[in-house]
Amino acid sequence: MMLFDTIAAISTPLGKGGVAVIRVSGENAIKISSEVFEPLSKKFSSLADVESRYMCRGRIWRSFEGRERISIDDGMAVVFRAPASFTGEDVVEISCHGGILVTQGVLSALVEAGARVAEAGEFTRRAFVNGKMKLTEAEALGLLLEAETENQLLISRGGMRGILSDATEKLYLRLVDVMGSIWAKIDFPDEDLGELDSSEILNELSLIYNDISALAATYKTGRAVSEGIPTAICGHTNVGKSSIYNRIVGYDAAIVTDIEGTTRDILREKVSLGGVTLKISDTAGIRDTDDAVESIGIERARAEISKCELIFAVFDVGSEIGEEDKSFYSELVASNKKVIALYNKVDTAHDQKRTPCGLFEKEIFVSAKTGEGFEELARTVGEMFIDGTLNLYNDAIVMDARQYGALKASSNNLERAISSLSSGIPLDLSASDVEAAMTSLGELDGREVGEDIVANIFSKFCVGK
Amino acid sequence: MMLFDTIAAISTPLGKGGVAVIRVSGENAIKISSEVFEPLSKKFSSLADVESRYMCRGRIWRSFEGRERISIDDGMAVVFRAPASFTGEDVVEISCHGGILVTQGVLSALVEAGARVAEAGEFTRRAFVNGKMKLTEAEALGLLLEAETENQLLISRGGMRGILSDATEKLYLRLVDVMGSIWAKIDFPDEDLGELDSSEILNELSLIYNDISALAATYKTGRAVSEGIPTAICGHTNVGKSSIYNRIVGYDAAIVTDIEGTTRDILREKVSLGGVTLKISDTAGIRDTDDAVESIGIERARAEISKCELIFAVFDVGSEIGEEDKSFYSELVASNKKVIALYNKVDTAHDQKRTPCGLFEKEIFVSAKTGEGFEELARTVGEMFIDGTLNLYNDAIVMDARQYGALKASSNNLERAISSLSSGIPLDLSASDVEAAMTSLGELDGREVGEDIVANIFSKFCVGK
Repeated sequence: MMLFDTIAAISTPLGKGGVAVIRVSGENAIKISSEVFEPLSKKFSSLADVESRYMCRGRIWRSFEGRERISIDDGMAVVFRAPASFTGEDVVEISCHGGILVTQGVLSALVEAGARVAEAGEFTRRAFVNGKMKLTEAEALGLLLEAETENQLLISRGGMRGILSDATEKLYLRLVDVMGSIWAKIDFPDEDLGELDSSEILNELSLIYNDISALAATYKTGRAVSEGIPTAICGHTNVGKSSIYNRIVGYDAAIVTDIEGTTRDILREKVSLGGVTLKISDTAGIRDTDDAVESIGIERARAEISKCELIFAVFDVGSEIGEEDKSFYSELVASNKKVIALYNKVDTAHDQKRTPCGLFEKEIFVSAKTGEGFEELARTVGEMFIDGTLNLYNDAIVMDARQYGALKASSNNLERAISSLSSGIPLDLSASDVEAAMTSLGELDGREVGEDIVANIFSKFCVGK
Repeated sequence: MMLFDTIAAISTPLGKGGVAVIRVSGENAIKISSEVFEPLSKKFSSLADVESRYMCRGRIWRSFEGRERISIDDGMAVVFRAPASFTGEDVVEISCHGGILVTQGVLSALVEAGARVAEAGEFTRRAFVNGKMKLTEAEALGLLLEAETENQLLISRGGMRGILSDATEKLYLRLVDVMGSIWAKIDFPDEDLGELDSSEILNELSLIYNDISALAATYKTGRAVSEGIPTAICGHTNVGKSSIYNRIVGYDAAIVTDIEGTTRDILREKVSLGGVTLKISDTAGIRDTDDAVESIGIERARAEISKCELIFAVFDVGSEIGEEDKSFYSELVASNKKVIALYNKVDTAHDQKRTPCGLFEKEIFVSAKTGEGFEELARTVGEMFIDGTLNLYNDAIVMDARQYGALKASSNNLERAISSLSSGIPLDLSASDVEAAMTSLGELDGREVGEDIVANIFSKFCVGK
């Protein structure tokens, strides 16, 4: 275990509440906390006497300038002695009443007694450094803290339970075995050490390569759930884009009128549709207009379309296909985005002028008013981005770009090793590629990761975690 | 102890954080929590096996519709068995990671297992009903949760430590003694039972009356600290009202320009000045104007002046007293408010045209620019509202209108008893007044308080407390 200075932070959300928790971690956590927290029971002369994990009632003290020392609150404290704590260091958690002044007062008292205010993610970072948690588990915890959808909860809990890090570890250990055989062959080329022979090495590397590729492929699903798919709703004016947007986000977020050009600003929400997290935006209807504000809105709509990954192209099912439509169709096709055409207003159009044109990934007839067609839309989006054979809670799933990058680097190196081995290049020349594949896998779960990557990951956490 | 149904709530503030605490209280708290929380250690087959106050690591489970039961988080739980808990009932506190979805998920799981979502203040209310806390102590805790100033912290901590309830109890017990003597005299008029004689009774009642009155008088200070004094800054345009407001609130809250009529909306802040909590507002400068918005502002300024209790009347020290001033002076004097005149801009005025006029409580020469005179202002405000002989942390202080009302009712009844006794009215006729005085004192610390009053007090707490 590494020894660090003692840090403290308010670990509960800021604001008024019944209870707040202030966490202290580091080699002087108990000593510093003892100066602030005094057990009420005569059994304990100080916090240092209290057994681990026992919640002890006490008085919390602070000195104010020009005034005698006063007890600013009554609270509870619990000691977790190293290494059996979240960070692996000595940890004290002080619970006080959740007033803002009180909570900050407890933190100030701890700082006055010698603690340093913790940086964002510093507790979790220490847990990682002290081997209490793999890097992928910490990343999963980060996703859990931010989770807004059920699927985000499922994959973060899978990651926290070590499913991805266990899968990574297994692949790593298989590569360790292969490397053993390779070195044996290089050092003792003529002896039979019971290791794999060259074709067996090639075979095992190919199997590992396939497994790493399969794991990397889960990122498609993981990304759709954790990071989300940038999605734009677009189309001409008055086809019902904002009504569709409101139905998808589940409340009246956008103003809807019969007046052309009602939406000008780009509205954004994060929603779950068909299990996919959509970062969805409603855009201004595209048309020729003299209105200066609307023109800016249309310009922004085009920019939004160029940045997104999925387009919901909305058409009025009861309208004829005009010249404007044709140029819009080609614009959509040329965009190379995934496009779902939504033929809206099926509830009112007596005469449905639009029929599937076959130009888009999918064409759905919907009514923003009645909700018709939206289940099909959800199912379509789900099938587009989520691998239905995966169990998000129980299967190893790659959930962020860093993890995916490490896996891709690993599989690229393996691919190189396999290709040189199959073309008869000597073993020792391929060995470095296999080693590089191991290093990349080691970066995935954090056993061989750079300080800058670690700093970047934990800086995204909140203070107090 | 009374038995209630089992309630649960998120006790930490809402929002994202490292840790959240969900509190469960009631006769089924342990049973219900056991269905949600499963200890990780093999030592415990369920939460029911875990000794009181031991923080136990475990898995938190929830069933989702159409899906197997999943563990939504890993967390800690601690059991406080009745009566050694905050509420006096069985209490379980579950700590989970502070994501919004997770925290609400834990609460939902508890509700699905049979708990009811707690109402605002319901935990503290149960603590009161179960005798864990006097009513004045609960009110002090309420103030602590809301505390924004050091003095609020001091008097709330005094109240929480039972200083006011102890003082109340002593007065109550002295009345109990007097009542004993009165009933002895009534029932056995001719015997000497070693009780107080009539003049001694009268004397003791007068002493108690004085002590109750002295306690009630602390409300002047208690109110100035806990509830705060409505204060308006007013004066003509361009005398520097907003600059004074900004200096008092400590940041650039109001826009300051040289242009007359800059302030139109009423700005409000709560600040501590000289130890007094001021609910201070900056108002539009009063002048004749054609500007419609400014006129509304001036109308509102006058309304604000009529509602406040303390006025900071601002004048430009370098300006002559004009006709407008004279009518403003009489307006202020007629208002019957406490008025402090602030002669501003002493830093720039070469020719100070204003001298103290003796019409106001206090006249102070200040510079909003340099801060000159503001220490004197703070001292003046402190002396006006705070009894300097009181120690806010160690003396009994009445901190809200309910407490004050109970004390006043008690002293009024005692006054009646004393006056009838001194005019020779028979003892038994005075006895009911003394009893009424006891009842009012009993309302103060909650031993004889109505359900409606209790409901009103606790409804002001946040959910989870």
